[in-house]
Formats: sequence, C-alpha cells, structure tokens
Amino acid sequence: MRFFSDNAAPVCPEVLAALGAVNHLDTAYDGDQWSQQLDGRFSDLFGTQVRALWVPSGTSANALALAALCPPHGSVVCHRDAHIQNDECGAPEFYTHGAKLLLADGDGAKLTPETLRGAVANIRNDVHQVQPHAVSITNATEYGLVYTPQEVAAIGVIARERELGLHMDGARFANAVAHLDCHPGDVTWRAGVDVLSFGFVKNGGMSAEALIFFKPELAAATLYRRKRAGLLLSKGRYLAAQLLAMLDGDLWLRNARAANAGARLLAEAAPNRLVYPVQANEVFLKARPDEAARLRALGFDFYDWAPGEVRLVTSWDQSEAAIRPLAEAIAAL
Amino acid sequence: MRFFSDNAAPVCPEVLAALGAVNHLDTAYDGDQWSQQLDGRFSDLFGTQVRALWVPSGTSANALALAALCPPHGSVVCHRDAHIQNDECGAPEFYTHGAKLLLADGDGAKLTPETLRGAVANIRNDVHQVQPHAVSITNATEYGLVYTPQEVAAIGVIARERELGLHMDGARFANAVAHLDCHPGDVTWRAGVDVLSFGFVKNGGMSAEALIFFKPELAAATLYRRKRAGLLLSKGRYLAAQLLAMLDGDLWLRNARAANAGARLLAEAAPNRLVYPVQANEVFLKARPDEAARLRALGFDFYDWAPGEVRLVTSWDQSEAAIRPLAEAIAAL
Amino acid sequence: MRFFSDNAAPVCPEVLAALGAVNHLDTAYDGDQWSQQLDGRFSDLFGTQVRALWVPSGTSANALALAALCPPHGSVVCHRDAHIQNDECGAPEFYTHGAKLLLADGDGAKLTPETLRGAVANIRNDVHQVQPHAVSITNATEYGLVYTPQEVAAIGVIARERELGLHMDGARFANAVAHLDCHPGDVTWRAGVDVLSFGFVKNGGMSAEALIFFKPELAAATLYRRKRAGLLLSKGRYLAAQLLAMLDGDLWLRNARAANAGARLLAEAAPNRLVYPVQANEVFLKARPDEAARLRALGFDFYDWAPGEVRLVTSWDQSEAAIRPLAEAIAAL
Amino acid sequence: MRFFSDNAAPVCPEVLAALGAVNHLDTAYDGDQWSQQLDGRFSDLFGTQVRALWVPSGTSANALALAALCPPHGSVVCHRDAHIQNDECGAPEFYTHGAKLLLADGDGAKLTPETLRGAVANIRNDVHQVQPHAVSITNATEYGLVYTPQEVAAIGVIARERELGLHMDGARFANAVAHLDCHPGDVTWRAGVDVLSFGFVKNGGMSAEALIFFKPELAAATLYRRKRAGLLLSKGRYLAAQLLAMLDGDLWLRNARAANAGARLLAEAAPNRLVYPVQANEVFLKARPDEAARLRALGFDFYDWAPGEVRLVTSWDQSEAAIRPLAEAIAAL
Repeated sequence: MRFFSDNAAPVCPEVLAALGAVNHLDTAYDGDQWSQQLDGRFSDLFGTQVRALWVPSGTSANALALAALCPPHGSVVCHRDAHIQNDECGAPEFYTHGAKLLLADGDGAKLTPETLRGAVANIRNDVHQVQPHAVSITNATEYGLVYTPQEVAAIGVIARERELGLHMDGARFANAVAHLDCHPGDVTWRAGVDVLSFGFVKNGGMSAEALIFFKPELAAATLYRRKRAGLLLSKGRYLAAQLLAMLDGDLWLRNARAANAGARLLAEAAPNRLVYPVQANEVFLKARPDEAARLRALGFDFYDWAPGEVRLVTSWDQSEAAIRPLAEAIAAL
Repeated sequence: MRFFSDNAAPVCPEVLAALGAVNHLDTAYDGDQWSQQLDGRFSDLFGTQVRALWVPSGTSANALALAALCPPHGSVVCHRDAHIQNDECGAPEFYTHGAKLLLADGDGAKLTPETLRGAVANIRNDVHQVQPHAVSITNATEYGLVYTPQEVAAIGVIARERELGLHMDGARFANAVAHLDCHPGDVTWRAGVDVLSFGFVKNGGMSAEALIFFKPELAAATLYRRKRAGLLLSKGRYLAAQLLAMLDGDLWLRNARAANAGARLLAEAAPNRLVYPVQANEVFLKARPDEAARLRALGFDFYDWAPGEVRLVTSWDQSEAAIRPLAEAIAAL
Repeated sequence: MRFFSDNAAPVCPEVLAALGAVNHLDTAYDGDQWSQQLDGRFSDLFGTQVRALWVPSGTSANALALAALCPPHGSVVCHRDAHIQNDECGAPEFYTHGAKLLLADGDGAKLTPETLRGAVANIRNDVHQVQPHAVSITNATEYGLVYTPQEVAAIGVIARERELGLHMDGARFANAVAHLDCHPGDVTWRAGVDVLSFGFVKNGGMSAEALIFFKPELAAATLYRRKRAGLLLSKGRYLAAQLLAMLDGDLWLRNARAANAGARLLAEAAPNRLVYPVQANEVFLKARPDEAARLRALGFDFYDWAPGEVRLVTSWDQSEAAIRPLAEAIAAL
Repeated sequence: MRFFSDNAAPVCPEVLAALGAVNHLDTAYDGDQWSQQLDGRFSDLFGTQVRALWVPSGTSANALALAALCPPHGSVVCHRDAHIQNDECGAPEFYTHGAKLLLADGDGAKLTPETLRGAVANIRNDVHQVQPHAVSITNATEYGLVYTPQEVAAIGVIARERELGLHMDGARFANAVAHLDCHPGDVTWRAGVDVLSFGFVKNGGMSAEALIFFKPELAAATLYRRKRAGLLLSKGRYLAAQLLAMLDGDLWLRNARAANAGARLLAEAAPNRLVYPVQANEVFLKARPDEAARLRALGFDFYDWAPGEVRLVTSWDQSEAAIRPLAEAIAAL
C-alpha cells in the first residue's frame, strides 16, 4: 500500500510482454526495425512530423533537450521548484556544458507569462551576462498541476518573441493529457513547444522515455550527444519495444487515466486538506504529523513533503479497490 | 545466420525471466533490494571488497571509469584501436570534461609495457603538456585477443610507478576469463586494475553493465556523475536483476564459453586464414571479396573489417549446430 | 569627471614604470625572476605561507579559485547579487565544468551566517541534488560594504562545519583592507578564507590580478587550469612586475585609501541620500531622474543603478580637488 | 645571447610607448576608442571585412578559434606536432568542451592535402565516431616552415569539400608573411582560412594577440566565450593599443623581417646542418652534444630539440651584429 512514487510501481504487463516479443536477432543500437518505427508512430500521435528518440531516463531526456536549445554560455528559464533544478544533480549543466538555470516563480510550480517575463526582464543584453536561450516548463508540474493548451501557448508566445526555445518536461505528460482530454499536439507543438520529454517509465514503462523534437532539425546534433553520453544502448530494440507497446491502443492514456482516477478518489476524500487542486496523479495534503503517523500505522507509505504536508502519488496499477482504503482512512482522520 | 555482432544477439532467457521476477513494487533508483546486493555479490565473485554499480551501457561504464581516474587536464593512455577512442563518439572526453586520449601501439590492439612506456616517455613534466593520469586496456581486445594476468600485471607495475590509474574495458571480460580459465580477480585487481567495466549485454544481458571499483573510495564521486549523466534509471531494480541473473550459477561464464567455443569452431575451419589467434568470440579472417561474397550468398552475415579481411562474431546463443554450416562453408572456400 | 567605474581609471605611474623596468630578456611564462618572487612577497604580506599566481583578470581569478574548491557536480553558495553570478557570463560554470551557484540573500550583497545556513539547510544529502562544496563572498561587496574579520570568521566557521571551501572575491580587497585598517591576514586566512582573488586592476594596475592560495596544495591543479585556459601569458614578467610594483611601499593600500577618501567625501555631501553606508570606494545614492540629469548636465558621468538610485565610483587617481565639485553639486541638489 | 625563444625577447619600444599614450580615462572592457578601431584596421590590412578581437595569449586565440569552428562532439584535424596538440595543456579540449584533435602527418609539421585527406578518410559517417568539423594549420609551422598561398588553398579546397572550418595558428604569422612577401589576405581568406590567430607577442608585443574572423558571423558567440573565459580584460585599451602600434607603419612586418633575417644569417653559416629549410625565424640544426656544448660554452643559449638536434630562435630585436657571433661560432664548429 505505497503511495510514495510512481517510479516504484511495477512495469505493466504489455511492456514486459513486448520485451519478449522482440527477443530475437536484430541490428544493434537504433538500427533495428522497432527503433525505426518511432518517428512515424509519434508523428502520427502528434499530428505533425517529429523526430522521436528513445533514451533510458527522464533526466537524460531533459538534459539532451536543453542541450539542443541552449549553448554553454546561455541560460534556461525554469521554475525554482523544477525537477531539472532540484533533482537531477546538475544534469542540465553537464549536458549543456555549463549553461545556467534562471529561476522563476509561479504557484504550484507553474511559470506564468508574468513570471517568465520578469525573469528575463533584467538581463542586460551584453556579454557580461548570461543570456536566456530557452524556457523549460513541466507538465504536469512537480505539484501535479496541469498547464492547459492556452497556458502553454501564452508561454510560447513569449518564447518566440524573445527567441527562446521551449522545452516541456513531460515526465507525467500522459497524466496531463489524460486530465486535459485534449489532442497531445494541442498542448505541445501547436502551443509552441519545440522539444518534449515524453515520460513512460512512471506510467508503466521499464527503462525507455521518448525525446520528441517538433523541430526535426534539432535532433541532428542530439544523435551525437546521445551516443557520446553513453545513452545509445546497444540493444535499443528493447527500449523501442517499450514505447511502441505503450502507444499501442493508447495504453499510455489508459494507464494515465487510471493513475489520475486514483488521485481524484483520494482528493475527494478530503477536499479541505488539498494544498493544490488535484489534476494529475499527485495529491498534496495538509496533514499534521500525528495524522500522517496514523495513516502510516495503517500501512500506507508516502513522503512528508513539507511541515504539515504530505505527498501521495498514485500509479497506473492501482485499482479503485487499492485506493479506497486510503481514501477512507483520510476521510476518517 | 548472422555473425556481425554480439550486440545483435537476443537476451538470454534467464535474464528475461529475472525482469518478470522483480516486477513488483520496490524503492526507486538504486535503493531497491536487488541493487543493494550488487556490492556483496561482486565482492564475492572477485574475492575482494568492491563497489559495484549498474549502468545501462558499456560506453557509460567506460566513461565513468575514466572520469574517476583522470582530471579534465589529464590524459588516458590507450591503444589507438581502442573502442573508447574510435567508437564512443568522444564519451571519455565528455565525461572527463576534456581529457585527452594518448594513443599507443601494440599488436592485436594490446598495449605492451614497451608501448605504454613509450607513450608517456616524451611527455615533459610541465604545465604546457597534458599529463597522463590513467591507462585503459581492453580485455578481450577489439581483435579478440586476451591479456593474461601476467600481461595485465606488467601494465599494472608501470601504472603504479607512474601513478596512473588502471582501467579495464571488459565489454567482453567474460569471454576473456572463459578463455583464461582463471579467477576473475587474477586478471583484474590482483594485477593492478583499479576499475573494471564488466560487460553483460554482449553476453546475453539486455541493458545492464557493471562498473566495478576495486578501490571502493573511487566510487563516491561516481555516484553523483552517474545521476548527473541521467544514467541512474528510476526503476533500477530491472538492471540489478539482470546482473544478478547473470551471476547466478555463473551464467556469465557459461554464456561466454559457448560464444568462445563457436569462435574456436570457426577458427579450426581455416587456421591459415586467421589474422589473429582466436581466443575470445571474434574471428578475423583473410578473405578475398569474392570469397566473402560467396559466404554471404549462402546466407551468412558479417562485417568487412579491412581490405581482404572479414570479422565474424559468435554469440552466447549459437550452438555448435548453428556454427557448423559457416565453418564448413569457410573450409570449403 | 567620470564616476562610473574604477576600471576606467588609468594605470598608476609606478605600474607603468615597472613595465619598462623589466623590459629586457628573461624566461618565458612564469619562469622569470619576477614571477618567482610572488610567493615570497605575498607570503610576507599575509604573514603565512601562500602560493600566489598572476592572472590577467578578476573573472579568471574567481573562476580558477572556484574550480579549485568545487567539483563539476557541486555548488558554490554566493549572494544573489554577486559578480560571479551576474557579471562574469558564466565563468564559474565554465571553469568548474558545470557546477551550480546556489544563491543566498543578505543586505548590501553580504552573506550572513543565517543566510548561508539557510541556503544549504534544505539540500538533501543524496545524489539527486547538487551538494554544496564552497562559499564565495565578496569583500568589499558589490554595494561597497566591507566584511569585518569577525563577519568573515563567522562564515568561516560554518564553512568548516559543512566542509565547504571559502573563497573571497577581492576585486576591491584593497579598499576593504584600507577601510578596516587591519592586517590583510585578519580578514582572510585567519578568518578561514582558503583562496583570495586579490584585485589590482581597479586599484591602479593594468592587467594583473593575484590569485592567493592560503592552502598552497590547492594551487597544484590550478597551474594546469591556468595554462589550459590560455591565461598563462608567455611574457608573464610584465604581469608579475605590476603586482610587485603595487606591493612596493604598500602602493596598493595608498591607492585604495585615496579612492576610499574620495567616496567618503561624496558620502558626507549627502548623508540622507545614502542607500548603503559608504565603506569602500562606491557610493549608492538616492537621486530622482531629474536630479541625476542635473548632475550629468554639469559633466559628471555615472551609472543609474536602480530606479531612483545612482552609483558613483571613485578611483585611486582622484584627488580631493577632483571629487569636491561633485560633492558640492550633490549637496546643492 | 639567447636563442631559445622569441617569447623571451623584450617588448618593442613602440608598443611600450603606446601603453603610455592610452594611459588616461576611457571606457572599460572593449568599449574604448582603441578597441573599437580594430575591426577597421584589420579589415584594411586584410582587404576584406573582418571582425578582430584582442585576446591576451596565443593559446586563448587558438582555443577560441577552434570553439567557433567545432562542436563538443566533433574533431579538429591538425599535425601531430602542432602547438595546439602538444603545448597548450588541452586548451582546445577545454574551450570546445571535449572535441578531439585528429592527428595527421606531414614533413616539417606541415599538413598536406594527402595527409589531411588520409586523416578523415577512415572516419565512418555514423554517430559512433567523432566527426571532423575543422582543420588547423600553423603558419609558420612549429619547425619554421611556411605554407605558401597555394599550399593553404589546397588545404582550403578540401576543407570546403568536407565542410570543415579552417583555422590558421599564426603565432608566427608575421614571419610567414615576411618570408612570402605576399599580401596577408593571399595566405588567409583568399586561400580559404576562416579564422586566424594573429600573433604579436613573439614579434615585439607584450600581452595582446589578435583573433581575426574572416567570416564575421563566427565572432558573435566568441564574444561570450571570451568573457566567460575571463579573457575580456577590464582595461582592454592597453591591449588594443599594442595591436594598433604594431600595425602602424607595418611595424609587425619590419619586426618579422628582422627576426627572419637573423635566422637566415644563421642558416647560411651552416647549410649542411639544416634539418629544415629556414624560412621564418627558427633554425633547426644538426649538432652533436659536444658541439652544442661548445656553443653554450661561448655563451649562446638555446634548446636541444631532439637527439643530435638543436633549435635556435631569432627575435625582432636582434641586429645582424647580435647574430653574427653565433653564426661564426656555428661555422667554426
């Protein structure tokens, strides 16, 4: 009965089965027939021509994306609570060879047009200051909030004005789209996103994320960077197969809907305790230490997030039956 | 009937089964119970206390190893035909932040004490020249030759004299040990090796290699570098499980012996055509273009390596019955 | 009648004369007799054994210092208004190969024990977060405030507790010491400073700053980094000569006292307009745009700093006679 | 009576005088009136529109040039005896963030069309191999040989074919042009050179070299890299003044002619001892250890270069009278 991370969830059976299904001879690296399908399959999904690369982690997807958008002497605007700033041990700085992250504010880890403009407003346009070259937003955010297509587009307009590349960290992109119930293109390229880290691992995958370039020409140097970083696994077909299995029959969406439904169930149990509206698969609750302790005594695992605040994360594999006991325990506090 | 790369071979069934066996809830990253067993299991294998980390590729294992041994302003001596020099797109330079590879010679891609001494002899000890900090040798080499414990130890003596760290690229370490029929410690730490990239993927694994630190203190900064490079996969238990499955019952050795036996069978079919003695699972044959074409016409796939020379690589999954047709075709040329 | 930057001031005659005095044959790089004197001369000045290197700019001094104290995967705590953060185009990130600057607060660009503790308090000690390895403080600060020996020592205590290296950006170190009227060792190594960027260019020098290692062993790798960065000029004697000329007869202190006296004169003209106490050679004044315009109409040049705020910087070469007209004009506003 | 390095020569009086002449108030960094003249003055010299930046060292000029031409995942072809490979402590790797130098052969440290083609011929065009992006040649070479305009153009043709940027390390460019007696444009941009490191320090300067971009658009990012590396000195007018003084009245050519004449005098003294033809200001002589010792006993200083080989370097400041004693001593051996 754990609610501490969707990274701890198992791999979904379709993905595991896909590994077996490709377990025969094929070309190494990404020359195999499955890897070769990614561009086409993701182009179909997004409704535009994309380049789609598998990578083994969300951190590497993000870092490669930023390296494609920002030179070593540039900066990337992001929210001060962004994963790329706080939880990737400086991967953006490593892959960009020392670019800076320029931190901005916004409720629920969401940048707003105002906070983005504010972040870049005071940068003097001279060689003494690191110039902004990109923006990175997270959808769903670190606090489970979802940018709407309109909100992304408002960021995208500023990005174009200022000639900033726009990256979306979509570690929980599936949860965001499931919540929005929109076309995945609406909240990405149609709203100005240049590169998307499309997460699958938290959503039932094992070890493959997709890096989606909506400007296909940005992918060229990334192919070298991916190899150079040791991310071009020699048996790449086992990564491609995971992604293809997730796309088949919109498994990615079904899984995300399941996880989101679980979170909603928890949210409905304690509407007055919510720190943020629950939109994706994360629930941030106000709970006193003794209340948290009572939940834990009942066998529920989760992280304390801040004083008087706990985080509950639901996963693709948790049925309503698996969630309900926690929902009831919360309601009963 | 392909003999072009052991990277193209399938994953062995024990490894695939292991993925299913760990497919339940556990802690993310490398906090899970399987990842936590690696130090102990590899320490037992090598007969000394080691730190063992999973990484998703051989390139990343090598690059992290070199970053642990060489500062940005240093150099690593390696053979001019080494994989780290020719086939990793500059991964050593990326991970070390710009160290140089100092190229040395030797038959069959093997460094010798003489060529190693020669490579460092002319470096002036001043700040204008990049100073050597490490040596990297490959066992088995890119041409399928195996360093004996004595040969490694002779390199190790020079490394200690010159205060150079000693790295072994063991993408085919299993094949080397299978050939030597020695204790794995004899050809590594007892011979002066500080860090080993212990390959499993070419030998039946899917996406996990082991990075073995015989000086455990070298691992500390590597833990940060692994994360920073996006190599710390969030569901690490699926990597740990692969390594543990390969260690169980010495599967790694059995697989390597099978691959080596296949190569020997091919070698015996054409002793006069051998470019190098066949010790591991690679066979380099002299073959005229028309001869190579005849083999291909029979359905055998392999790489041309050099003018008049082809490379045949055997894999863990090829039985004698699978090899014999090619052996006979070669003999009949 | 310019008060916009001490970088715009001329070179003092003793420094210019020193260039002529060494203008004969000697060894290249830093092998010459003058460069060889630096360790001894600065050790005498600071009352402890130091390693002293010339470098051609303050930015390079700072960046080399930080590279000596912080690995690529670490961070350096500094004030959010620090020069290394805002005015060096990412030099710290370049030289450290991607370390982060961790920004902290404090009045007048001064870190306090509380803000330093606060900055590092929330860093989880795990590989997902960039760990702090160093602190950098600026003395005198970007707003002309001076850390006392006691204030530095309070920072130094925390640095030792947390195993952080302590760097002092002393672009205006001379002005700070002139204000404090203390032994230069009191505000540096005796207070826990490990490396000092000791500025001379703003204080009458031409193109030489000193990088002082109070832990001499930290200098070893820096010698390579300095060369590798193209900072080891081939005719280094012309840099060493500048530093020696500034040390002779405490010229560095005399120049700084002159600049500080000029600032005091301005401060006394308008005590109610001061944004910060005037301690070194910078004066931040509240002045409406029309007031600033009036001063400029009288021929005085200076920077607007913030809305309703101007910055005046005095230099070593400005006599009381040169300052008084501005003082009077301010008083008359 | 030293002949060991032109770096050891004094600064010529015109340059020293120029420092005094600009020793008054002006804008900091490169905003001053003298720095602003560089583009125009060097454009006039080369007969085409260039961007010209001062930098404080030849190593930094070379490294910035290569960073402008080669991405981190690329390589630069150069001669295996090139200064950038052997004497800059890895500066190219630092500034390019880890690009490789791809070493090629050629007599007298000169690349030839054949050796250049050979160096890149075997690079597979795939992501596993570092792809060549630039060529760097040195004129005059490390052995004092001079590429003619035709020879450079032959390299330039290959560079264009292969889409490689072409850099010329002109630490002794003045000596090359003095030898060729050609227009400086003939051996640079008209022959395909994209970026030139134009050396002045060995030729009578103190601390300023010029970085010349024949494709002005390449300079844009370099301005940030120069600042980021701490190479944008705050009192830049003292660097610009040196360059302008060297251009005035073609002082750079007169100085180089004087140095070359000295070398010719030495060469004529011992035509049978010459290891290479003497074209610039370096003379490589065959001399047994006892012969070298005899010269040294007479008070002549120089480097042993290889067994049985010594290097003599002449400088701008050595008159025929200063050279003749050595010429006679050599003749008398």
